[in-house]
Amino acid sequence: MENSKVIRHLDPRRWEGVSVLDYKEEGQHFQSITRQVLFDGETDFPCQVRYFEIDEGGHSTLERHQHVHVVMIIRGRGRVLLNDRVEEVKEFDLVTIPPQNWHQFRATEGTPLGFLCLVNVERDRPVLPGEEDLEMLRADPDIAGFIRF
Amino acid sequence: MENSKVIRHLDPRRWEGVSVLDYKEEGQHFQSITRQVLFDGETDFPCQVRYFEIDEGGHSTLERHQHVHVVMIIRGRGRVLLNDRVEEVKEFDLVTIPPQNWHQFRATEGTPLGFLCLVNVERDRPVLPGEEDLEMLRADPDIAGFIRF
Repeated sequence: MENSKVIRHLDPRRWEGVSVLDYKEEGQHFQSITRQVLFDGETDFPCQVRYFEIDEGGHSTLERHQHVHVVMIIRGRGRVLLNDRVEEVKEFDLVTIPPQNWHQFRATEGTPLGFLCLVNVERDRPVLPGEEDLEMLRADPDIAGFIRF
Repeated sequence: MENSKVIRHLDPRRWEGVSVLDYKEEGQHFQSITRQVLFDGETDFPCQVRYFEIDEGGHSTLERHQHVHVVMIIRGRGRVLLNDRVEEVKEFDLVTIPPQNWHQFRATEGTPLGFLCLVNVERDRPVLPGEEDLEMLRADPDIAGFIRF
């Protein structure tokens, strides 16, 4: 029988034996963001638990995809593009991002933004916005001022 | 297209529009514990995110089952039976409980213990220990002193 495991938290938002990785293995449409894989999925439970942390001034990629994100903020504050609006988020807020919603996370000035992100192990690749998508998104002045691409 | 959603955190570990429920709909082998369902699973992502909180002196059910638990402590401190040992856990520790591991959570005196628990939507029912199981568990004095049943 496989044995239970405790992965100890080490302040601030680092875990014993868990590597701090690049956000993505390739690409350039992001800034000052790291990734830690806390649970990598198992046959019986094909779900990954990742922790992302964005430093002050950084941002995740502006993207969309078919797979669902379930996100819980567990450090700091920030703002997030949720398809057609920008929302403030803070520690312990839960964000669900259904299929094909454009999204991008940014850390608020003066704080990092750290969040758990749950996904299926089997998932499609994110899609970046094309010129038409950017034009559509930028039609809203709040979104135009928020997004980084 | 389904729209993204933010469920706001309200101190302490309550969320806007999320009901605080009984831990289980029936049974009696638990004490001073509540449940909140933060994400109830979707076709594309058949995973539930629940938040459980154990008040000082309380405990979850001593049980085992085939389905996997992925747990992150997000409030306070406590101890947990993990099959053949008792471990201390604190905020942001991650606990994975593979199939058929006996487990029970207890809050440390003077603090609550609150944790996220991820599970498959489709899962088997927990099994309680029989006399032989209890005898086996109680063979270890640390476990004998820890478990509540």
